[in-house]
Amino acid sequence: MAQLIRINTREKTHTSEFPSDELTALGGRGLTSKIVLDEVPATCHALGRDNKLVIAPGLLSGTPATNSGRLSVGAKSPLTGGIKESNAGGTVSQKLARLGIKVLVLEDRPRAIDDWSVVVVTKEGVRMESAGAYAGMGTNKIIAGLQEKYGDKTGVMCIGPAGEQRLTAASIQVADPSGRPGRAAGRGGLGAVLGSKGIKAIVVDDQGADKVAIADLDAFKTANRAWAKLITEHPVSGQALGEYGTAVLVNIINNAGALPTQNFRSGHFDHAEDISGETLNALLKQRKGIVREGCHPGCVIKCSQCYNDKDGKVITSGFEYETIWAFGAHTLIHDLDDIARLDALCDDAGVDTIDTGVALGIAMEAGILDWGDSKKAIELVSKIGTDDPMGRILGSGAAFAGQAFGVDRVPVVKKQAIPAYDPRAVKGVGITYATSPHGADHTSGYAVTANILGVGGSVDPLKKDGQIDLSKNLQIATAAIDATGLCLFVAFPVLDSENGVPLIVDMINAQYGLSLTPDDVVSLGISILENENKFNRMAGLTEKEDHLPEMFLENLKPHDVTWDFSSEELQQAKVSA
Amino acid sequence: MAQLIRINTREKTHTSEFPSDELTALGGRGLTSKIVLDEVPATCHALGRDNKLVIAPGLLSGTPATNSGRLSVGAKSPLTGGIKESNAGGTVSQKLARLGIKVLVLEDRPRAIDDWSVVVVTKEGVRMESAGAYAGMGTNKIIAGLQEKYGDKTGVMCIGPAGEQRLTAASIQVADPSGRPGRAAGRGGLGAVLGSKGIKAIVVDDQGADKVAIADLDAFKTANRAWAKLITEHPVSGQALGEYGTAVLVNIINNAGALPTQNFRSGHFDHAEDISGETLNALLKQRKGIVREGCHPGCVIKCSQCYNDKDGKVITSGFEYETIWAFGAHTLIHDLDDIARLDALCDDAGVDTIDTGVALGIAMEAGILDWGDSKKAIELVSKIGTDDPMGRILGSGAAFAGQAFGVDRVPVVKKQAIPAYDPRAVKGVGITYATSPHGADHTSGYAVTANILGVGGSVDPLKKDGQIDLSKNLQIATAAIDATGLCLFVAFPVLDSENGVPLIVDMINAQYGLSLTPDDVVSLGISILENENKFNRMAGLTEKEDHLPEMFLENLKPHDVTWDFSSEELQQAKVSA
Repeated sequence: MAQLIRINTREKTHTSEFPSDELTALGGRGLTSKIVLDEVPATCHALGRDNKLVIAPGLLSGTPATNSGRLSVGAKSPLTGGIKESNAGGTVSQKLARLGIKVLVLEDRPRAIDDWSVVVVTKEGVRMESAGAYAGMGTNKIIAGLQEKYGDKTGVMCIGPAGEQRLTAASIQVADPSGRPGRAAGRGGLGAVLGSKGIKAIVVDDQGADKVAIADLDAFKTANRAWAKLITEHPVSGQALGEYGTAVLVNIINNAGALPTQNFRSGHFDHAEDISGETLNALLKQRKGIVREGCHPGCVIKCSQCYNDKDGKVITSGFEYETIWAFGAHTLIHDLDDIARLDALCDDAGVDTIDTGVALGIAMEAGILDWGDSKKAIELVSKIGTDDPMGRILGSGAAFAGQAFGVDRVPVVKKQAIPAYDPRAVKGVGITYATSPHGADHTSGYAVTANILGVGGSVDPLKKDGQIDLSKNLQIATAAIDATGLCLFVAFPVLDSENGVPLIVDMINAQYGLSLTPDDVVSLGISILENENKFNRMAGLTEKEDHLPEMFLENLKPHDVTWDFSSEELQQAKVSA
Repeated sequence: MAQLIRINTREKTHTSEFPSDELTALGGRGLTSKIVLDEVPATCHALGRDNKLVIAPGLLSGTPATNSGRLSVGAKSPLTGGIKESNAGGTVSQKLARLGIKVLVLEDRPRAIDDWSVVVVTKEGVRMESAGAYAGMGTNKIIAGLQEKYGDKTGVMCIGPAGEQRLTAASIQVADPSGRPGRAAGRGGLGAVLGSKGIKAIVVDDQGADKVAIADLDAFKTANRAWAKLITEHPVSGQALGEYGTAVLVNIINNAGALPTQNFRSGHFDHAEDISGETLNALLKQRKGIVREGCHPGCVIKCSQCYNDKDGKVITSGFEYETIWAFGAHTLIHDLDDIARLDALCDDAGVDTIDTGVALGIAMEAGILDWGDSKKAIELVSKIGTDDPMGRILGSGAAFAGQAFGVDRVPVVKKQAIPAYDPRAVKGVGITYATSPHGADHTSGYAVTANILGVGGSVDPLKKDGQIDLSKNLQIATAAIDATGLCLFVAFPVLDSENGVPLIVDMINAQYGLSLTPDDVVSLGISILENENKFNRMAGLTEKEDHLPEMFLENLKPHDVTWDFSSEELQQAKVSA
């Protein structure tokens, strides 16, 4: 039976316990949100002693289940003031699961703010070692240093200098299988929470660990074979994402008139082609970068890549559509190399690329730098994690930058930056932005599926009809998927095949010797959202926070659409107990 | 009948109207809060087109009523996100009233953020002129320039560069009778709202204006004579405040163990004597500063002063206890000249001294500068209003600085800095901090009276008994006083004499030909708080915001007291419809 490990970061001690039956039935986001709800006082300061950082593999993580290596990290968010689950790839999830660890809970906080530790998790147990040597270090060097010290097969999650400074856009970077920091629990400032706990990194070494126990191995294998086939045969998860990465969306979303351009002034970017997945793909091939790779073993989608400059030198990896948008169309920068450099700076300092990119656009809005000025952008983003106060502003996210620069056109919900899909032209995802307990977040209910991609049905992106139900159902399904450890991109085939959910249920049943039904998965998703919304209510977030800022009442070209949902309509998309 | 004037800051036009009967019965804070509630969408962006800045003299302003020259400025606050009334002395209130202007409402916003205007109000009417020449200018130069241009007897209210940058601690500075910018509508970032409307200053010239009409002049004079006597014969308003200024409180509050020292780590400051009212008084006399002066004509309290350096050169004026505390005990700086320089920098840049001083202490908490390092403090505060991003951080207030520097010991309520009385050792004022609709604000219900000063009864400052009622009643009385245009310091004699409220009522009745009773004054105070709390609810502020941060659960020396009010208890101090 997998264990719940609590680490007291003040006393540098830890305890192991067998979780309750209630917790045992949960994994990933289900587990992080439940523990945050039950154990963190909702009105506490997110950087104070009472917050907890909860790290949990999914229910299927560590098994051979295809694409099951995602990790959930939860806490009260210093960015939104509400609950947060941030989901990352990389190799930590599977290794924790193999070590028999169901969840790590980091508690309390050191007395001194510069008392840095590394948590080392091995088959022998958990220990904390001084991390003074890594203080101030970027994530590339930290991961390299830790893998040199603890073994190049170890999983590493860490903060950069932004997390040390406890900036509210600080991420937790997770090493990918090549040891690059390209994977992140990026959103909601969870790097600041890890930083507040004095933890510079967590190293997970699963050498010598047993395989994860599977109650009915044959049934598991049968289901997993069909599951892998389902994923690889779907045009999005099986082809487009692997070939072009998520950047395949640049042209698609631009053609839909929904690529937010110059801080959401237009849905069309004239230079979209320069930053598109097709251009990325051509450059990757031409420059002999890595065109496709998985963020964790067992991934068959392989939407990741490693992007070189024209001299063949690696610039960045895990180069996502939302990042390319945030530093690209949003800011009018359209040099893909410069955008890649901005991504790399964020990964190394350890900040969320979405909130940082949107903050950069806010700085442009205020005249701090010119629209499209990538040279100055690189100069400013380079300051994140340094003593320069400009770095503190940009590293604290879009809402913070809006306040610093006195800008009122700030695209945030619950203080988290709205990502790369204009909510006026993809109304379903707008519902998700407004009502997700995590603040604006496309991954909380990715209605781009039926709105734009023709996946899981078809709902007119420019019209209101059907959007509330679409977003609500996707939010429920997403919460459930985030509990399994499965990559969210499995949703594409799952939404298009009636076999999808049953196969997930078959694998869980086979692993744990259970007899769950697809309805149980829906119930799981509902209960997670109920828990999250309950925490937010206790934290003082009201339905007044469940709305898009007034800038979205402006008319959006080229479709001449605006945001037109009432508060009452939006509340219907929320799942609350 | 006095007029309501609306200025459209986008079109640079204005309209005059006679206010409704309901508005006519209101003045000052009563009027600003009613108009903000009725006309500003509660969830709008405070710097956007929909917010309005409302400027209103009190009911008695412009008459010879003793100490009746206070001005109310209201809006949705960009600092707290709730409603705000900020109250200032200076000469604008009386001049507006004499011009027959009951309230000025600034609406909408220019298209360009650098389109600066001056609003000029004279007997001939209202006009807007370009203020491009004043852009970037500090408030000393602006006031001097405007009074040179429009006459040295004109009233001026203006923003400094911090207001131009729309920083959330930006103030509106109001010229005192000597043309210095020592008076401020300081709290809640109203300078940012004025800045967002492109208004650099409002000049009020009442030359040629008639006297304010008084229905029964004899009755008015009789009441006012008794009223002046009441104020001058009270030991606090008649003696202490005039002789020592509000800084008389330094020793009093320190002796009570309630002077928040080093970011609220202790209630006792070893160097209090260095920054006390007695020391200030001695230096004023020795250096031939101005020991006492009123902030507006007709003031008999005269708590203001003009502070020189050792060479006799003016450093600052309107040098208040809360400022001396914020830059003094809070930061461990105890050189009164340096504190005066910090005050002067804030007045000139146009920022609230309380929120800026507390922010400076937060920077010390984070190690940005050392505790007590006044040289570095002056260097950093000098950056406010410049392009240096450190200036943007410090000029955005304590809550913002806490986020920028990743500090969780941040003394704020509703994001506004807690001022100079430790709520653990003056529990009554702690109730006010927690429950005032304006965020932490000692002037919203100054329970220091009965807790420490023995005014209006006596309530043990260290015990819970009686504090809820004390704070609630003071909040009601304060709201009413803020509607009259009377200086809040009249509350000292009013609380100690049964004749106080009847005399105020007599003056209002005599002026307007009414027959109000003291009960009507109480009802007025209640209705103002109801309006303000209603706005806040509509803006999404809940009872979760009505509490002190967890740092106040720490034990406070020397009395070994902590903050021990439950949320339920605190709600009893709120006046809500």
